[in-house]
Amino acid sequence: MILDPRVETTSFLVTDLPLCQVRLNENACFPWILLIPKRENIVEIIDLPEEDRLQLMKEIALASHVMKDLFSPTKLNVASLGNIVPQLHLHIIARYESDPAWPGPVWGREAFQAYPAPEKERTLKALQQGFLGRAFSLHSAKS
Amino acid sequence: MILDPRVETTSFLVTDLPLCQVRLNENACFPWILLIPKRENIVEIIDLPEEDRLQLMKEIALASHVMKDLFSPTKLNVASLGNIVPQLHLHIIARYESDPAWPGPVWGREAFQAYPAPEKERTLKALQQGFLGRAFSLHSAKS
Repeated sequence: MILDPRVETTSFLVTDLPLCQVRLNENACFPWILLIPKRENIVEIIDLPEEDRLQLMKEIALASHVMKDLFSPTKLNVASLGNIVPQLHLHIIARYESDPAWPGPVWGREAFQAYPAPEKERTLKALQQGFLGRAFSLHSAKS
Repeated sequence: MILDPRVETTSFLVTDLPLCQVRLNENACFPWILLIPKRENIVEIIDLPEEDRLQLMKEIALASHVMKDLFSPTKLNVASLGNIVPQLHLHIIARYESDPAWPGPVWGREAFQAYPAPEKERTLKALQQGFLGRAFSLHSAKS
């Protein structure tokens, strides 16, 4: 997969799932990850074949559990917009009543803060552990 | 299913799918439908059992095709936010470079226009025909 440079330069690799690459969005105001299906020339969810769409829902659910486990948000926001970067990417964002955009959407706001390096490393490690733990428990439940 | 009155009073019934009720959102600025799973006490996508989540993806795809067929948008926006109305509901919105919120999100903007009655009736009929046609072609493809 060729990652759009506007995504690549504003997010950090967390892990790879069977369909999607998971990335941490560069905005310390909100716990915010991206799922990017590793397929070429896909803009809309319906551009994916059905098998991939169902896998995408599984990975949305996995990522939602990880975000809920780690950040205990008031609400999860899950969205595919792509008005600016067309390459298909799903936003999964942990929202709080105390966050700077609540109850509005996070996009198109002024609320932005770069991650201080230690917080970025801590968040990436927590997410990596979270995905590993959840993936392992899913695997154990099946076997 | 008991529909949150904030959804019920600001949208119009289009049709019922196996999992979701489809409703037209009352805002003539954007072709905008809602999918509301007919289940009680569901806030997040991960509150649905896996079978329902996979059906939700099928209905998102069906609805996305109907919106694309009817409105030929520049981009579809698909989202579950729920910061204001927690009852799980998915937004599917046909976006254009010429719409009043482009390229920003549609939520939390001032852009609102009530449907004039004839346009509302025309849009509801077109959506109902669109879902019927798409559902029929899916059924034919399987049999």
